[in-house]
Amino acid sequence: MPQTNNINRRIVLAARPHGAPTAETFRLEETVIPTPATGQLLLRTIHLSLDPYMRGRMSDAPSYAPPVAVNEVMGAGTVARVVASFHSDYKVGDLVLSYSGWQDYSVSDGSGLIKLDSSLIKPSHALGVMGMPGFTAYVGLLDIGQPKAGETVVVAAATGAVGSLVGQIAKLKGCHVIGIAGGVEKCKYAVEELGFDVCLDHRSSDFPQQLKAACPKGIDVYFENVGGAVFDAVLPLLNLFARVPVCGLIANYNATELPKGPDRLALLARTVLTRSLKIQGFINSNYPERHDAFLREMSDWLKTGKIKYREEFVEGLENAPQAFIGLLEGKNFGKLIIDVAE
Amino acid sequence: MPQTNNINRRIVLAARPHGAPTAETFRLEETVIPTPATGQLLLRTIHLSLDPYMRGRMSDAPSYAPPVAVNEVMGAGTVARVVASFHSDYKVGDLVLSYSGWQDYSVSDGSGLIKLDSSLIKPSHALGVMGMPGFTAYVGLLDIGQPKAGETVVVAAATGAVGSLVGQIAKLKGCHVIGIAGGVEKCKYAVEELGFDVCLDHRSSDFPQQLKAACPKGIDVYFENVGGAVFDAVLPLLNLFARVPVCGLIANYNATELPKGPDRLALLARTVLTRSLKIQGFINSNYPERHDAFLREMSDWLKTGKIKYREEFVEGLENAPQAFIGLLEGKNFGKLIIDVAE
Repeated sequence: MPQTNNINRRIVLAARPHGAPTAETFRLEETVIPTPATGQLLLRTIHLSLDPYMRGRMSDAPSYAPPVAVNEVMGAGTVARVVASFHSDYKVGDLVLSYSGWQDYSVSDGSGLIKLDSSLIKPSHALGVMGMPGFTAYVGLLDIGQPKAGETVVVAAATGAVGSLVGQIAKLKGCHVIGIAGGVEKCKYAVEELGFDVCLDHRSSDFPQQLKAACPKGIDVYFENVGGAVFDAVLPLLNLFARVPVCGLIANYNATELPKGPDRLALLARTVLTRSLKIQGFINSNYPERHDAFLREMSDWLKTGKIKYREEFVEGLENAPQAFIGLLEGKNFGKLIIDVAE
Repeated sequence: MPQTNNINRRIVLAARPHGAPTAETFRLEETVIPTPATGQLLLRTIHLSLDPYMRGRMSDAPSYAPPVAVNEVMGAGTVARVVASFHSDYKVGDLVLSYSGWQDYSVSDGSGLIKLDSSLIKPSHALGVMGMPGFTAYVGLLDIGQPKAGETVVVAAATGAVGSLVGQIAKLKGCHVIGIAGGVEKCKYAVEELGFDVCLDHRSSDFPQQLKAACPKGIDVYFENVGGAVFDAVLPLLNLFARVPVCGLIANYNATELPKGPDRLALLARTVLTRSLKIQGFINSNYPERHDAFLREMSDWLKTGKIKYREEFVEGLENAPQAFIGLLEGKNFGKLIIDVAE
């Protein structure tokens, strides 16, 4: 079902998933392209960002943001082009960062829109390295993780949008960086292209032993974006005063019930106590005062080649559901973006 | 077995406890009083501090401090009097804060000793409100908890050495303070004498419901010193950006195995993530740069009556084991101190 001139295609949440999302979780609908009124503008989605946090929005469990309602358009950050404007601040052709969601077109009154900085290397970077994932890596590592030169930093999803940046920033700060990723190809990339000291495949049967061997001085910062078995392997290796910024738990998102016992909550509490650990959840928007510094530093690192950044583009809005399902399974390699239009 | 002139009584760790310590965990021994050499001094223990952390020292599980060896004297902070001195900095009669342990006499070369500040209201305060427990309450609440006026602060062991101070400092900062204690008498004291807004008995069958009702705006700071069922009741009430300083887990100390499942580690991680929680373990000695401010402020609060402080004295070194066993069961009412000598 390709997009045609007078049709707005949109993907709605058809039903809340129980466990992993499936094709039935989503429904592709057609509506007429909405018409902007005075003070509004019409946006054509160019790039659509797919990110793990969206699994949380599909659930009605309490979280830091309200869920997407059933039968409503899936939310998402987008890069969009202004194609009609009755708003004095925007003209046709402007590129903006918006939260238009999984659809071809959307109407906006301008609130929440950010005009894309002309210094961006690529517009899609606004959804990744220069956007939410980049800022998440930056403040999580620097403000909560506070890595010091010579310390050991571990990050999972090491070739993903956030993890790849966490590891590279940690290298810039003089740390020993251990990445964790799924598969040989990703691990090779993390070491050879991103400059991680080591990258381990969490699918290896002896992964916990490999991690221990790779961290002979223990772990000072564990940037948590996966949870599950990776955290289990990390926990015994955390050093006195280790910091654990928590920005995601992708390994747990599709879980329908808690794992069997024993109940390790008391074990975690004991480890927190005996090692003076700091475990802190966050989202990037908790740190508005740090955003300017992030834009300045990350832009500089990117342009001088100190930070490398990989994107995986999938063509076509209609392919977003399958791409998102794959994202939760670790099938993407780099920041996942749906190309919705030219 | 009272102390006699030429005998040093000491209580050693007879065997590592499996579960709760018992009388067999300890052994009272007699040795000759040690003789100080040049550069050393002989200390007579006056007050012996009993604190929950000592349960950790009895175990050889990894912790922030090494364990007491079997057949060695149990460690403890003490107030002691110099009774012989071959050390130029100390003269007979000086009162010092030392780590002499569970015994009548000890020899020191002066390292680690602190001469008692003459401004102390009572020497025993050096083991409590003006010492380790007081500093623990002060930095844990203020530096990690960072309470703001109008926020809700919850603290357990509300009449204990640390909890009683946490709650009172939180009141001084303008917070709504909920104490948790064992029994009607302690709860009454926390409200009527210490000025807590509410104090709940964790032994009540509907304690979780009571806690929820007492925190209509949720919990912003939970000062964790007990763990167990109290934490279970607190967890669902923690607000976005809540802070959880962890200084102790007395409810867990005697556990011999982890509780049955399900494994709530993932639940805790999810709560940390979705509410941007900060959970941080600490010991007071992590904050040496804050010690002067603590001494100045706490001394002022105490002398102006803004902070009240309760001690429970037990006579006789020989009664330390039973008093310590009772401490882990919550039998003390206020800071527990053994009076070893006049």
